[in-house]
Amino acid sequence: MTLLQVPITEFLDQLATKEPVPGGGSVAAVSGAMAAGLISMVCSLTLGKKKYAEVEDEIRALMDRSESLRRELQELAEADVEAFRRLSVAYKLPRETSADIAIRRDAIQAATRIATDVPLRTAQAAAAILPLCSPAAQKGNSAAVSDVGVAVLLAQAAVRSALLNVEINLNSLEDQFYVRETRAEVAKLTATLHDDTEAIMALVNQQLQA
Amino acid sequence: MTLLQVPITEFLDQLATKEPVPGGGSVAAVSGAMAAGLISMVCSLTLGKKKYAEVEDEIRALMDRSESLRRELQELAEADVEAFRRLSVAYKLPRETSADIAIRRDAIQAATRIATDVPLRTAQAAAAILPLCSPAAQKGNSAAVSDVGVAVLLAQAAVRSALLNVEINLNSLEDQFYVRETRAEVAKLTATLHDDTEAIMALVNQQLQA
Repeated sequence: MTLLQVPITEFLDQLATKEPVPGGGSVAAVSGAMAAGLISMVCSLTLGKKKYAEVEDEIRALMDRSESLRRELQELAEADVEAFRRLSVAYKLPRETSADIAIRRDAIQAATRIATDVPLRTAQAAAAILPLCSPAAQKGNSAAVSDVGVAVLLAQAAVRSALLNVEINLNSLEDQFYVRETRAEVAKLTATLHDDTEAIMALVNQQLQA
Repeated sequence: MTLLQVPITEFLDQLATKEPVPGGGSVAAVSGAMAAGLISMVCSLTLGKKKYAEVEDEIRALMDRSESLRRELQELAEADVEAFRRLSVAYKLPRETSADIAIRRDAIQAATRIATDVPLRTAQAAAAILPLCSPAAQKGNSAAVSDVGVAVLLAQAAVRSALLNVEINLNSLEDQFYVRETRAEVAKLTATLHDDTEAIMALVNQQLQA
């Protein structure tokens, strides 16, 4: 059974144990998937309603995007588990001969690279939810605007959470070109994250008071 | 089958539909439960390790607390669904005679009160995770410090998300004493939330660089 096929209670029980999987990386991806799912819900609650007939096409395009990000984030939650397993196996490779040591070292580097790429892609996918939130708050079913707020908050938490998992792995990577490129991408993803989140929250709160 | 007994993929699929349940309230509670579960994981990874023998009792107490908050948040995720169902039924009560109208009005007020209490308790439980995070980051297994970071970020998002759901219901409540009391509690829960979160994140980042 894959990670997301287990009941939520069981996932939460497994999370609490000392088994390192599932861990923060999968949780970040699941949070992002919930954020995307909430945007899809807001779109679903808008489509087919006479009051929102004018924005039908735009909302449909938003929903295509949120559903595609949700699928991607669900896959990344599973990929995080697989990346962790590969890393564990690599660390357990024999290190008796010099050939063993060289093979083990390469395997660890390759596995760490994957364990960095997965949360980086998680952060990118979660960050891509934010641009969907303003139009969802402004043009989607106004009865569901609080759900857009929840989506924004969870997407932000997912980006920052995933980047913590990027950070821990970057320290063990030897490919300095990749490390530099990744740090630049991390900086890009976080540069306006706080301000973007609060701008959308202001929009949501404004609608809630209306 | 209750909300948390369904597989995660199915929960996410249901979220994306126009069915209003599950919605932002349950998502807030699940996020809080994941945050609590991550603190429990960090404690589990600390207990029984020689290196951390000195803090064993403190970590065990932390874990009792995080597991109790996790259980509470899981119950609140289910309670949110039930509160929504009650509200839906109340709105559908007949309104033909003046007796009908009075009964329906009272039923809606009572159901809205529950639909406000559940996310308020969710916000309180999620906020109670934050004080567990500093000791977990400072004294828990240092290999899992990024998981403490994810817990903090998700707990913060859960508090703010739950409070959005309090906010939408407060507007329809007639009991002005309850409304004032609740707004005071909301203000208390949010007053230092941002600063507390960033203080713990600074601690986590400091440990990640070490």
